[in-house]
Amino acid sequence: MASIQESIKKDFGIEFSDQKLLLEAFTQGNYLNEHPEEGGRDYQRLEFLGDSVMQLIVADYLFTRYPDWEEGQLTEMRIAMVQSKSFSHFARLAHFDRYIRLGKGEELSGARNRDGLLEDIWEAFVGALYKDQGAKAVFDFLNQIFFPAVDAGFFEEFIDYKSKLQELLQRDGSVDIEYKVVKEDLSDAQKPHFEVAVFVDGQPLGSGSGRSIKIAEKKAAKVAYGDVLPK
Amino acid sequence: MASIQESIKKDFGIEFSDQKLLLEAFTQGNYLNEHPEEGGRDYQRLEFLGDSVMQLIVADYLFTRYPDWEEGQLTEMRIAMVQSKSFSHFARLAHFDRYIRLGKGEELSGARNRDGLLEDIWEAFVGALYKDQGAKAVFDFLNQIFFPAVDAGFFEEFIDYKSKLQELLQRDGSVDIEYKVVKEDLSDAQKPHFEVAVFVDGQPLGSGSGRSIKIAEKKAAKVAYGDVLPK
Repeated sequence: MASIQESIKKDFGIEFSDQKLLLEAFTQGNYLNEHPEEGGRDYQRLEFLGDSVMQLIVADYLFTRYPDWEEGQLTEMRIAMVQSKSFSHFARLAHFDRYIRLGKGEELSGARNRDGLLEDIWEAFVGALYKDQGAKAVFDFLNQIFFPAVDAGFFEEFIDYKSKLQELLQRDGSVDIEYKVVKEDLSDAQKPHFEVAVFVDGQPLGSGSGRSIKIAEKKAAKVAYGDVLPK
Repeated sequence: MASIQESIKKDFGIEFSDQKLLLEAFTQGNYLNEHPEEGGRDYQRLEFLGDSVMQLIVADYLFTRYPDWEEGQLTEMRIAMVQSKSFSHFARLAHFDRYIRLGKGEELSGARNRDGLLEDIWEAFVGALYKDQGAKAVFDFLNQIFFPAVDAGFFEEFIDYKSKLQELLQRDGSVDIEYKVVKEDLSDAQKPHFEVAVFVDGQPLGSGSGRSIKIAEKKAAKVAYGDVLPK
């Protein structure tokens, strides 16, 4: 079996100077209780550090990439990117689940595939990488596996544009918001297609399309939200 | 009048490569509305970035300085350090209030001395410094004005040790917690001195002293909290 270091090197070209730091990031507390001879620490301190590292590297990425975005948009996108569901997804994608050194009880209870643990391990790895090699190395790592998801629209799913549009529109009092299917194509059962428009007090404000009404509604809300947002 | 750059250089030895970034950090939105000829942006995007910069630099500082602290202690101290009251205090200490370019209405309403604005400006300056010169420069700046306050006990006031002790002790059911003045010296009216002990179910768990009962109680709670905390 390849070591964690070998796998990380193969997958991401990353070599740790301090192997203990790498191991620490993948070590759960009960594993150490069961292997007191190994010494060292569990991942929790590195998780503490990695949490802030993710916040900053993502903030810096968004700040640089979107020079025209206001603070509100930047914050919203950062929140969508820096959260549990996102981290556990990328931890799996990076095969981090395979490397975790778990206690037996946790192994039996299926902790290896639990979102909460995978999120922690993601942060711990990022913390370890920052400590070992600095912010630039973390940026390069995220450029391989995390930031490409921005262009793929991955983080959009964590932004509830329908709620956001409603909040924004109703800031100054109640308005009528209605989503209507304005076009649908069900000719290919494998590829249904819907177009939805959002109407505010009867006026169309945006439209979107997709393979489900829900997706099309969300896209319509996003377009409308972008148009209403104070510039 | 000295420019912001001259003052920052004199006080902290910091010279910005990008003067626009420095100016942006000290510019409030309405100032720009009143001086459209100046162009540029207000501080808000830099504040977004600086918020994360403070989180990380402080996390890294604590992680490195306190190798024996658990995640919980690190998090608690970071929260005490990275918050509004702390930032507005240091913004004043650094004379940042003098440099803000405010709109006339804000000036008249006293915004220059408002905690909320000073906190934002602190973060914006830190964001600008990070963008201009990187994490190391921010660390050096904080080493001049912010981190020394750790040793002076400045951030302790933001940690509510009495509540924390109570939470910790009552995790597994109700216990009786009592603070008693065990010694007091009022012979010098200018320098009263109190010693307080905290008793848990009748057993003394820690004591502390100070110029008021409130301060002595807090110190006693801190000592007891440190002793009870799972290692």
